[in-house]
Amino acid sequence: MARDERITLAHGNGGRLMHALIDRLAAHFSNPILDERADAAEVSVGGARLAFTTDSYVVDPLFFPGGDIGSLAVFGTVNDLAMKGARPLFLSLGLICEEGLPISLLDRVARSIKKAARRADVSIVTGDIKVVEKGAAHRLFVNTSGIGSIHYPGRLGVRAKPGDAILISGGIAEHGMAIFKARHKMGFMADIKSDCAPLDGVVGRCLAASKRIRFLRDVTRGGLATTLNEIARVSRAGIEIHESDIPVRPAVKKMCDVLGFDPLTIPCEGRFVCCVDEKDAAKVKRAMGPRARLIGRVTGSHRGEVHLFTRVGAGRLLSMLEQDQLPRIC
Amino acid sequence: MARDERITLAHGNGGRLMHALIDRLAAHFSNPILDERADAAEVSVGGARLAFTTDSYVVDPLFFPGGDIGSLAVFGTVNDLAMKGARPLFLSLGLICEEGLPISLLDRVARSIKKAARRADVSIVTGDIKVVEKGAAHRLFVNTSGIGSIHYPGRLGVRAKPGDAILISGGIAEHGMAIFKARHKMGFMADIKSDCAPLDGVVGRCLAASKRIRFLRDVTRGGLATTLNEIARVSRAGIEIHESDIPVRPAVKKMCDVLGFDPLTIPCEGRFVCCVDEKDAAKVKRAMGPRARLIGRVTGSHRGEVHLFTRVGAGRLLSMLEQDQLPRIC
Repeated sequence: MARDERITLAHGNGGRLMHALIDRLAAHFSNPILDERADAAEVSVGGARLAFTTDSYVVDPLFFPGGDIGSLAVFGTVNDLAMKGARPLFLSLGLICEEGLPISLLDRVARSIKKAARRADVSIVTGDIKVVEKGAAHRLFVNTSGIGSIHYPGRLGVRAKPGDAILISGGIAEHGMAIFKARHKMGFMADIKSDCAPLDGVVGRCLAASKRIRFLRDVTRGGLATTLNEIARVSRAGIEIHESDIPVRPAVKKMCDVLGFDPLTIPCEGRFVCCVDEKDAAKVKRAMGPRARLIGRVTGSHRGEVHLFTRVGAGRLLSMLEQDQLPRIC
Repeated sequence: MARDERITLAHGNGGRLMHALIDRLAAHFSNPILDERADAAEVSVGGARLAFTTDSYVVDPLFFPGGDIGSLAVFGTVNDLAMKGARPLFLSLGLICEEGLPISLLDRVARSIKKAARRADVSIVTGDIKVVEKGAAHRLFVNTSGIGSIHYPGRLGVRAKPGDAILISGGIAEHGMAIFKARHKMGFMADIKSDCAPLDGVVGRCLAASKRIRFLRDVTRGGLATTLNEIARVSRAGIEIHESDIPVRPAVKKMCDVLGFDPLTIPCEGRFVCCVDEKDAAKVKRAMGPRARLIGRVTGSHRGEVHLFTRVGAGRLLSMLEQDQLPRIC
């Protein structure tokens, strides 16, 4: 990047530019834990194995079909802990409020956080509130960091292996299209809502079903295309997936088609990808629930790349998101 | 608060309105850990005693005499862990960047974070970057959350006891006045810089010097007046301090006098208050260093209140900050 380059919205979209920026900044702080680039860091304190993660939430609008910034901030961080095989325990809550924000709105977000925390069985144990001048923040930003306790014997999310089956837990692109609908006041599309949900329960069932799970990652910014590219990159392996096997609900598919979006690049907030030894794929798919699908496999060839086989049988390289497809949605 | 009340800058100044807002929001998430209202939460995971804390940093300008948003974000969170007697270990880093932010500026902040993390001997192990549209965030907001390991046998920061001596580790109001100077381009006041510094080292020496330390709290938003009121409130005790014993560097005192500020309400970022059994006060004062002062004591009377004896011997009630005295400075 040139010295005078500036941050663009595409640096936050989960795609290629964001990864380049993260690489650049993370180089300053390089250490073996950070360099794993997992959803959560695994750290050891006093003999205990902990997962530790952070996420800021800047979603606009604050309330959308199927959730709001409060539930998103709880489930997003809970899910990052779950992807390390951790049981989520404690969350911190940092609020940045714009001057002029109605306090009743903060109460509404707090009630949603409370409900979400109860559903995910985590406690908010520490917090912070900052206020910035009018015009300095878009109403409300939320940060949650989380601590979980890791009991799974292996180290998840380090490397998927050639031959592993790739499963997804449900239909993609629902969160992103729900945000789009809310931002553009397309209330007539009644059938679209966010998939925003805690994943620690279903992950626990998967980990109980197989000791051969190698990699879990929740699908967020940049969509499934980005998640698969991340897995291929950190695993130094190839990935092959079949478009016809990827679940997309008909209403979501239709909305994407009408608007010209590729569902593979649209965020989810309650779906995850699991790479598991193919021997255990059927067991884990059952544990993932009725909407889970086997979508492809990890290969020893074309390392670092994701190949998509389309419905008509043609193969193409599936890249991370490049420029912005949508306004910011996470 | 009325239903349609709105957030004002005074809700973020560390004073009375902020405490009322925190009480209101924290009531949604009430649990014994959160309800302690400590600088950091003490949690137990797998038998290990951890401190866990979070803080967002919205300081404007980003760079100021004696520090910048990066060093502040590291030391501020390290200090909150230290106040629980914890050895700070791991930090998370959440960045919210405004579209248009020069990437070279992010690099500069990252270098400062790296240097500060090295000085405080902590590792950045997980992170997140969000980008918001131009005008939606004031250039850069930083969140750090931190984990530390607690070895001190007692539970710090729960209750100071009548008879305890109250010590402060150095001159007050330096951070706030440095920010004021930088915001208002008062470069001619050459002698003012932020006290922004990690406190875990000096806290470690204090805890080694005495097993009778009851309460530690770093002085941040709202200044010493607010910190002492917080201690009086959670301890359900009174506090008496003597104005003439409170250290304020002459240049800082002069700047406050000229501008009409009360140094007692101006933030620090590298000072802390220690409440200790009076038998060990001299030992702990020595461990705190040459700028430490004994400023008063905890009393069994006038519970929840702070009484200040002025230079002329008169006593007055010292309240938390009410309205804003300064633009936001933490």
